[in-house]
Amino acid sequence: MRLTNYTDYTLRTLIYLALTTDRLVTIAEISEHYGISEAHLNKVVHQLGLAGDIETVRGKGGGLRLGRPPEAIRVGDVVQRCEPDLVLVPCFGEQGVCAIEPDCVLQKAMQGALTAFLKELNRYRLADLIAPRRKLAALLGLPRAAREPDSAGGRRLLRRQA
Amino acid sequence: MRLTNYTDYTLRTLIYLALTTDRLVTIAEISEHYGISEAHLNKVVHQLGLAGDIETVRGKGGGLRLGRPPEAIRVGDVVQRCEPDLVLVPCFGEQGVCAIEPDCVLQKAMQGALTAFLKELNRYRLADLIAPRRKLAALLGLPRAAREPDSAGGRRLLRRQA
Repeated sequence: MRLTNYTDYTLRTLIYLALTTDRLVTIAEISEHYGISEAHLNKVVHQLGLAGDIETVRGKGGGLRLGRPPEAIRVGDVVQRCEPDLVLVPCFGEQGVCAIEPDCVLQKAMQGALTAFLKELNRYRLADLIAPRRKLAALLGLPRAAREPDSAGGRRLLRRQA
Repeated sequence: MRLTNYTDYTLRTLIYLALTTDRLVTIAEISEHYGISEAHLNKVVHQLGLAGDIETVRGKGGGLRLGRPPEAIRVGDVVQRCEPDLVLVPCFGEQGVCAIEPDCVLQKAMQGALTAFLKELNRYRLADLIAPRRKLAALLGLPRAAREPDSAGGRRLLRRQA
């Protein structure tokens, strides 16, 4: 059980943009900082744009920025949108691949587990993922401008979990 | 995100054996009823034997049976044992694949979601999976002997969920 690289790249792109709110960011820059190919990121950015999570400013000096506040982007929603194959077991995708499918309790158990997985992820917003803002910006080698104080959103989550 | 076929076959083998408690079962029989190759089932059965979930009686007239009561086998434990790759994101498996790994909140979120997933699955025992015993036995074309009344374990779970 593993998420796709596509989902991982999508979340990391969102984290990068949430850490860099003072300017527009290019795909080349994200590619360089994470070591992810631009070809992969092009697809990621296109889909994030369609979902409204990021905005693209075209032309010279153009680039990417978040399309909504990081408090408004839930991690579970992003994962659910990115994963083409949240089927867990073959019978989720196709009918008739298992003899006991019509009365299978396992299918119900798996659906419940998947719901629990996404619900837990939805406890986190993008704002929570960038809570250690200064440390993350330093790890990515981002300029000082990005290193604002750690966000209140992140501290709120840590308190809730304590 | 998808479980491996190996996990799916393991759970289905356990369901089959839990439905057939009046006699020993052969791999050929499970293979025929589910349409799963014997080669795949050989590996499944070997690992289930090592875990103690099933017992193998060797020799003429030999075969397989459950190694412990179906109430004692938790679905989440089986899934956790079967899945080699419960890593979700690349950084679970290898260090240093992502620049922000040392302070990544997403990694913590994913671990929490995985825990929630397995915890939800562990609400189910093998006994719950065979609660609609007669219906499942009929779907598998099992002899009448297997079609005992629906188990109390299954009814208990359904009440708990209501």
